[in-house]
Amino acid sequence: MAMLPLILFVVVSATVAGADGAVASGPLPHPLDPLSAVELTAARAAVLASALVPARPINFHYVGLDEPDKPDVLSYACTPNNTSTSILPRRALVVARAGGQSHELRVDVTDTSAPSVLSHAVHRGAGFPMFTVEEQVAAGELPPQYPPFVDSLRRRGLAPDDVGCGVFSMGWFGEGGAGKARRTKLQCFVFGGGGATTANFYARPLEGVTLVVDLERMAIVGYSDRVVAPVPKAEGTDYRADKVGPPFTGPAAAPGVVVQPEGRGFHVDGRVVRWANWEFHVGFDMRAGPVISLASVYDADAGRRRRVLYRGFVSELFVPYMDPEEEWYFHTFMDAGEYGLGPAAPSLELGADCPDNAVYMDAYYADGDGNPVKVENVTCVFERYAGDVAWRHTEAALPGQVVTEVRPDVTLVVRTVATEFKTVGTIKCVVSLSGILEMKATSYTHADQIDVDAHGTLVAENTIGVNHDHFITYHLDVDVDGTDNSFVKNTFVSTRNSGDPATGGAATPRRSYWTVRREVAETEADGQASVNGAPPAELLFVNPSRRTKLGNVAGYRLVPAGATAASLLADDDFPQRRASYTKKQVWVTPYDRAEKWATGMYAEQSHGDDNLAAWSSRNRGIKDTDIVLWYTVGLHHLPCQEDFPVMPTVSGGFELRPSNFFERNPLISTRPPGNGNFQNCSCRAG
Amino acid sequence: MAMLPLILFVVVSATVAGADGAVASGPLPHPLDPLSAVELTAARAAVLASALVPARPINFHYVGLDEPDKPDVLSYACTPNNTSTSILPRRALVVARAGGQSHELRVDVTDTSAPSVLSHAVHRGAGFPMFTVEEQVAAGELPPQYPPFVDSLRRRGLAPDDVGCGVFSMGWFGEGGAGKARRTKLQCFVFGGGGATTANFYARPLEGVTLVVDLERMAIVGYSDRVVAPVPKAEGTDYRADKVGPPFTGPAAAPGVVVQPEGRGFHVDGRVVRWANWEFHVGFDMRAGPVISLASVYDADAGRRRRVLYRGFVSELFVPYMDPEEEWYFHTFMDAGEYGLGPAAPSLELGADCPDNAVYMDAYYADGDGNPVKVENVTCVFERYAGDVAWRHTEAALPGQVVTEVRPDVTLVVRTVATEFKTVGTIKCVVSLSGILEMKATSYTHADQIDVDAHGTLVAENTIGVNHDHFITYHLDVDVDGTDNSFVKNTFVSTRNSGDPATGGAATPRRSYWTVRREVAETEADGQASVNGAPPAELLFVNPSRRTKLGNVAGYRLVPAGATAASLLADDDFPQRRASYTKKQVWVTPYDRAEKWATGMYAEQSHGDDNLAAWSSRNRGIKDTDIVLWYTVGLHHLPCQEDFPVMPTVSGGFELRPSNFFERNPLISTRPPGNGNFQNCSCRAG
Repeated sequence: MAMLPLILFVVVSATVAGADGAVASGPLPHPLDPLSAVELTAARAAVLASALVPARPINFHYVGLDEPDKPDVLSYACTPNNTSTSILPRRALVVARAGGQSHELRVDVTDTSAPSVLSHAVHRGAGFPMFTVEEQVAAGELPPQYPPFVDSLRRRGLAPDDVGCGVFSMGWFGEGGAGKARRTKLQCFVFGGGGATTANFYARPLEGVTLVVDLERMAIVGYSDRVVAPVPKAEGTDYRADKVGPPFTGPAAAPGVVVQPEGRGFHVDGRVVRWANWEFHVGFDMRAGPVISLASVYDADAGRRRRVLYRGFVSELFVPYMDPEEEWYFHTFMDAGEYGLGPAAPSLELGADCPDNAVYMDAYYADGDGNPVKVENVTCVFERYAGDVAWRHTEAALPGQVVTEVRPDVTLVVRTVATEFKTVGTIKCVVSLSGILEMKATSYTHADQIDVDAHGTLVAENTIGVNHDHFITYHLDVDVDGTDNSFVKNTFVSTRNSGDPATGGAATPRRSYWTVRREVAETEADGQASVNGAPPAELLFVNPSRRTKLGNVAGYRLVPAGATAASLLADDDFPQRRASYTKKQVWVTPYDRAEKWATGMYAEQSHGDDNLAAWSSRNRGIKDTDIVLWYTVGLHHLPCQEDFPVMPTVSGGFELRPSNFFERNPLISTRPPGNGNFQNCSCRAG
Repeated sequence: MAMLPLILFVVVSATVAGADGAVASGPLPHPLDPLSAVELTAARAAVLASALVPARPINFHYVGLDEPDKPDVLSYACTPNNTSTSILPRRALVVARAGGQSHELRVDVTDTSAPSVLSHAVHRGAGFPMFTVEEQVAAGELPPQYPPFVDSLRRRGLAPDDVGCGVFSMGWFGEGGAGKARRTKLQCFVFGGGGATTANFYARPLEGVTLVVDLERMAIVGYSDRVVAPVPKAEGTDYRADKVGPPFTGPAAAPGVVVQPEGRGFHVDGRVVRWANWEFHVGFDMRAGPVISLASVYDADAGRRRRVLYRGFVSELFVPYMDPEEEWYFHTFMDAGEYGLGPAAPSLELGADCPDNAVYMDAYYADGDGNPVKVENVTCVFERYAGDVAWRHTEAALPGQVVTEVRPDVTLVVRTVATEFKTVGTIKCVVSLSGILEMKATSYTHADQIDVDAHGTLVAENTIGVNHDHFITYHLDVDVDGTDNSFVKNTFVSTRNSGDPATGGAATPRRSYWTVRREVAETEADGQASVNGAPPAELLFVNPSRRTKLGNVAGYRLVPAGATAASLLADDDFPQRRASYTKKQVWVTPYDRAEKWATGMYAEQSHGDDNLAAWSSRNRGIKDTDIVLWYTVGLHHLPCQEDFPVMPTVSGGFELRPSNFFERNPLISTRPPGNGNFQNCSCRAG
């Protein structure tokens, strides 16, 4: 995941699906499979043929699976070895712009030869759908034809061919209301000039120049050339292997390859993955990227498969920058809602992004004309052998022997935004940030020259890496062993020992201990939590109707794994109003199929009136019902020189870990490694 | 690291060093090498021969390297390709008990054929040294000869052969002062009886029975049989592979092996490890376990090796349990200071604890008679190929091509307490907790029967997993690019934009942003920090005299990675007074070679007057001088059924990550994977 907003400067390298993608035959789709190329094509045809959208042209901003109702999907999924020849209806949700309006259409594509529009609505509220790739490219091509811009370049000694411009979403800062024109800002970078070339043009911003584009008219309607800063040098910015060496002076590790002598341990059937005790479906959405659905774990003691997660995906990435100046104040990107994680997802490099033992999956999304675009190898699945231990114990106290039992830890990784499944029943989600910083050009060449707040760090000559945050919000429709769940806060409470049994104390000199105050959340107000709060608490999703044989309530526990920053913006600041949920890491809402996107369906220039916090303010009941966990991974990023020219990976995430879900450690009865000879159970004379 | 205190029931399986260990020849030791078998033997001989300790018997509670002064070690280490034929003096620090006193002796063992005692002192303050293995075993053998205990067993239908007892340190709860008798408590477990056998006797406590032993007289001096609870059943408690299967009903992953076609990428010279850009020394101490010293990283841009960490080790593990009742209130273990992590460190299982590509190291410690004991394979070193990515970027904006650059992440792992070195300059320390819970026997067989605070979770019939904490404190003598460092707190401060340039604001509608308040700690009071505090802050060690070419101060940043719990015990409670530093994760002290152990040199029954917080209360200067970082990883553990009978691994830790230490990402100039053909630099038509 890049540090940059998901700005596209030219068309990405995905290929428009050809004839092979158009073949209609094949196995029946899983009800949560993303729309195929044929289905995307059918949805497009139905929209173009519909009288409900008379205006032309029609631009397709979002096309995704309109999922069947949850009970229908569960019914399908809970039928063992489903061999039904009838499928659930296949429907597309299309958000298209035509005649200056945002149209929402639901299209039945079950029969791709006769698709039909089921419903149509015009969005009248604030906000706009995601940009199309095509309009980003078209907008980026406008400046070289715009005389004031060419003049600005000339004053800087640059030619139009030397620069490229990209769409930087302008956010919302209190202006206008619904129905205003759809505009965006452009900012530009120096690709060449003066003989310099670098793939890392982000390091060479054309500082001080901002353009405003009316996206409907595709015309420049605002221009500002406010300040001039030196264009940072290209030297030292490139990261391509053939530019940095040979010689390669960086540290070198010996190559390593994972070999699986018995082959892979998992099976992929369509988009359903089965591994060890896990089964789940891997979907894809052009806004969210990968979607994990219907994750269930086999419980050997219970002799059955038990549900854990109905659906999990990244709902939004909010990335506010911390420079209030004219060219930077609006840098408050919502990467999923404004740009879409799907078109931005690169094809994974075999053997580099994922190890050699990985399996890859492709995906399709719709381009601005509604045609399917294929992204090959967008997701990989592999077993991870990191040399970790799942559990161990050495026992030296038994007469005449020493027992050592160790089980290696193997994890199944589903990567794009990485999700790991552990045999112990844990699901772990990790976000890894790498890529290129957003950089501001400056006259500074040494830190000693900086005597005002530079809003960042001097990471190279004439280059400030600007302070910013990352807030990655997961939509996690956790279903612990069934649909109806409750949210429990187990608060650790410091307790005084009175020392007197007459008052409930223990007659010992111990003065204090902690105990647990268990609170079951009744309404959404109880469902909000900060994971850094005092006193500390464990947060669980439980199924009140499922208890272990010992009577403990079956649950899954949320375990943050670093990156627990919350937003520091003022509550009344406009970006914060749009992403108001980023002040707390945890929100729990009742399941509502319309509530998928934390910043609302129309995130671009949204006003915050249709976001997660707005829904939650209705304070609906969340006890013993179908509930959804929203978890935000947050990082404050104060850049340092090591982040230049490409930043090393930093990671954060969380785990969903079983807590009284199983009767006991589910790995106790796992065969130890080796050939079944218990070679890791050593019994030696003590 | 087991959840249990490091209680020994019988002698561990380590072998007393034989003739081979007694050979005096061999390569010259590194000044930080742990004492060899020959040196341990020489130290013992010198103490036994010394007139300074006239009383007999002499029991050896701690023997470790008395390190040379830091300037001498640095001088040695900074001499390239040190071929000196003279070595720094080799000295042993011996803590021995004789005549009811704790003796501290420094012994010169440079010439192992003529060792000499350099100094002698008697400890007159509170607290005692670690238990010896031998006295733990001797104390555990007392109960079967003690008639009241045999009566207690008989009343429970048990025979003396059915039980085993272990030493449970009794802590300090306000009684007596210095000079009191050295006592400990014993608690017992049911090994057999009724035909039941399990390796997991911890699951079968003999609840209600506590014995007090005078360790000097090795006699039972106190006895309590207060309550009777059922002995939990043995069924379902065993974890040995040959007891849980076949059939193995647990989840099975496919086996995987890491192959390194070009061999290992690191070299071990004695105990010095060199890998990629890292060099460091791996030591061992019978109290701390593994010790990482003299870690330095090669900076290709600077063309030289730069220091990062002089010495890092686990200083203490504080494990307070949260049950105030008679048999449990004193369970407030200091695993390092009371038991020692060295004697407790098991030999690692090849191919299970560490992957097949690991290299192993042995270690010696001294037994109670002062003789060397060898622990084979106590530490392993391996390169970890977890399928992660060190950095990546896909660039679609260049005319006619798509650039994708990915560098796989390889990490060098030094495991016992795991330490990882990353080529990007990061040192990561991970503590993994697995093993067996401390369990309390109870009459409860179902959660519904529990109507008072049970101080834990019913994890099996008649079995409560008792609430507890883990606080693992690292001593980290960070030396960023030299010895004199400062501690910096970069606090993220929410800032209001006035909107008016006249008052320093920006004339934009943005209302807020964060900025960084940089504070350099002057004294130890400034060097204390909570990592969960508000407002959030980045914590760094910097070298004020080393700046990048751009003028940024060279530093390393502390990045917590989960497990940031702080103690919830009352400040005036006795265990908290002994481990008072556990209320904050971060302490910074000036380097003092005497300050190694967070709970003081004599942790057993200590009073808290010689611990990290006590030293820090002197509020010494810590600016631009040699300073030490103490970081505590903390977990609150509310047990769940999945933790039974052996708990799955949970991990926590932290990273030390370079921050303006390098001029740029040090991996930019690393050769990409493959055969130098840049096969991971794909340039395709866009």
